[in-house]
Amino acid sequence: MELWYTEKHTPNSGLTIKVKQTIYKEKTEYQNLDIIDTEDFGKMMLLDGLVMLSEKDEFVYHEMLAHPSLYTHPDPKKVLIIGGGDGGTLREVVRHPSVEHAVLVEIDGEVIAASKQYFPQVALGFNSNKAKVIVGDGIKYVSQTDDSYDLILIDSTDPVGPAEGLFSPDFYRNCHRILTDDGILTTQSETPFIDSFSRILPQVVANFKTLFPVTSLYLAAIPTYPSGLWSFTMGSKKNCPIKDFQQARFAEDSLKLNYYNDSLHKAAFSLPNFVQEMLR
Amino acid sequence: MELWYTEKHTPNSGLTIKVKQTIYKEKTEYQNLDIIDTEDFGKMMLLDGLVMLSEKDEFVYHEMLAHPSLYTHPDPKKVLIIGGGDGGTLREVVRHPSVEHAVLVEIDGEVIAASKQYFPQVALGFNSNKAKVIVGDGIKYVSQTDDSYDLILIDSTDPVGPAEGLFSPDFYRNCHRILTDDGILTTQSETPFIDSFSRILPQVVANFKTLFPVTSLYLAAIPTYPSGLWSFTMGSKKNCPIKDFQQARFAEDSLKLNYYNDSLHKAAFSLPNFVQEMLR
Repeated sequence: MELWYTEKHTPNSGLTIKVKQTIYKEKTEYQNLDIIDTEDFGKMMLLDGLVMLSEKDEFVYHEMLAHPSLYTHPDPKKVLIIGGGDGGTLREVVRHPSVEHAVLVEIDGEVIAASKQYFPQVALGFNSNKAKVIVGDGIKYVSQTDDSYDLILIDSTDPVGPAEGLFSPDFYRNCHRILTDDGILTTQSETPFIDSFSRILPQVVANFKTLFPVTSLYLAAIPTYPSGLWSFTMGSKKNCPIKDFQQARFAEDSLKLNYYNDSLHKAAFSLPNFVQEMLR
Repeated sequence: MELWYTEKHTPNSGLTIKVKQTIYKEKTEYQNLDIIDTEDFGKMMLLDGLVMLSEKDEFVYHEMLAHPSLYTHPDPKKVLIIGGGDGGTLREVVRHPSVEHAVLVEIDGEVIAASKQYFPQVALGFNSNKAKVIVGDGIKYVSQTDDSYDLILIDSTDPVGPAEGLFSPDFYRNCHRILTDDGILTTQSETPFIDSFSRILPQVVANFKTLFPVTSLYLAAIPTYPSGLWSFTMGSKKNCPIKDFQQARFAEDSLKLNYYNDSLHKAAFSLPNFVQEMLR
C-alpha cells in the first residue's frame, strides 16, 4: 500500500508527498502533531496537518528567519524567540558569538519534546548554555515581562489556531515595548503568491510600519512551504538591513551555513514588482 | 465529480491541482499537449504531462528568461529564441525598443497554435512586426544558419523527449558560433532543489564555462515549477550581468513588468550557499 500525504495550500491545490512511514502522531493540548518519514524530504513535522519543517529544506527557513536580523543589529546580545519549538531558529541564533542569551517561549511543550527526539539536528540549539526555554504563552510573556531584548524573532505557524494572536497589532506593540533602543523585530509573514496567504503580508508590513521607522520585507525559497516563496518582515528601531549590514562581523564569524551569505542578505530585500505592488 | 491533476516532480512528490475543466487535448507529432483550466492558477498548458505555463505565474519565467540578458547586452538588436512556442518569451523580447528582429524556432507548430487560441495574453509577441516564426528543429537551425544573433534564449522543456538535444554541448557550441562578438546565450537550467533536476544544472554551467568567459547562474521563484525555485544560466562573450548592467537603458525603456526590475536583476545572481556548492 502506498501512503501519500497532501497538504492543501488552498482548497484547490497543494503539495503531495509519498510517505515511507508515520513515525509519531499525537493530539497535544494545542494542536495535532504528526511526524512522517518521506523519500523526498526526509522526516517532516506537521502541525494541524500543515508542514512545519522538513529535514530537506528546514535550513532555509531557520537561517533566513535568524541571520538577516542578527547581521543588521550592531551587537545582538539578548534574543527572544516566540514559537519555534522545533529549535531550528534557536540553533541558528546561538551560533552567533555576539549572542549571550537566547530565550525561547513555545506554547506547546510537546513540539519541543518531539523535535528533540526525532529531529536532533534541528533541536541542537537546546543544548547551548546560552539557551533558556520557557514553555508558555508568548503573547502573555511579552505583555508581562520586564526583560528587554535586542532582537525578537517570531517563529509562528499560520495565523489560525494557536498562532493567531502572533499576528495581532497588540502583540507587535508589546514586542516593540520590550525591545532595546536599537532593537529589531522579525516575523515570518507567509507567501506573497497565494491569495489566501498574501492578504496577510501587507497587513503585517502595515502594522510594523506604525511601530518601526525601518520596516523591510525580504524573501527566501522554501520548497515545502506553499508556493515555495516565503516572506519575512523586519521592523527595526534604528538600523537598516542594507545600509547597516554588519559585513565585518559576518566575515569574522564565518559561520558554516547552507543558504545565507552576505551577498544573499542584500539580495533577499530586492522585491519583485508584484510584491512591491502589494505593499502600496 | 472532482478532477485533480498531479504533476509528479519525482516518483515521490508533486503538485496537485483541482481542474475546473479540460479545455484541449492533443497528441502532436512530438508530444502530448493538454490545456486545463484551474481555480488557483488559471489556464495551464502541459506538455507530456508537465506544466509548461500557467496564467498565474508565467510572467516570472518569461520575464526572467528574457530581461536579464537583454539588459546585460549593451545593444541587443537580433534575438533568437529556441523553443518557447507559447510566445511568452517572445512577448518580453519584442517589448525592448533596442530589439529589431526576434526569430523564434519552435519544433511543434501545435504549441504555437494552441497558445494563440487559448493564451492570447501570452501569445501577444506573435503579433509584433519584429517577430519571425520558424516551425522547425532549433538544433538543426543553429547548426546550419548563416545568420548571427546578439542574444539567444533557450526556452525549453525538461531534457527528456524533444528538448533533450537542447542541453547538449554540441548545441551550445553551435549557439556560440552564431552569436556576435559580444553575444549572450541564456537557457533555463532546471531547479537546484530536487536531486533528479539538480544534476542537470552543474552540467549546463560547466558546458557554458568551456565556451564563455563570463558564465553566471541566476534564480527566480516560479510556484508551478518543481520546488518553486528555478535557475537560468547565462553565458556571455564579453559583458558581465552585474558590472555591465544597462541601468540607463532600463530606466529609459521603463517597461511595465510584474517581476523583473533593476534591483532584482542584480539580486537574482546572488546564490544561496548550497547552490554555490553545487557549482564547485
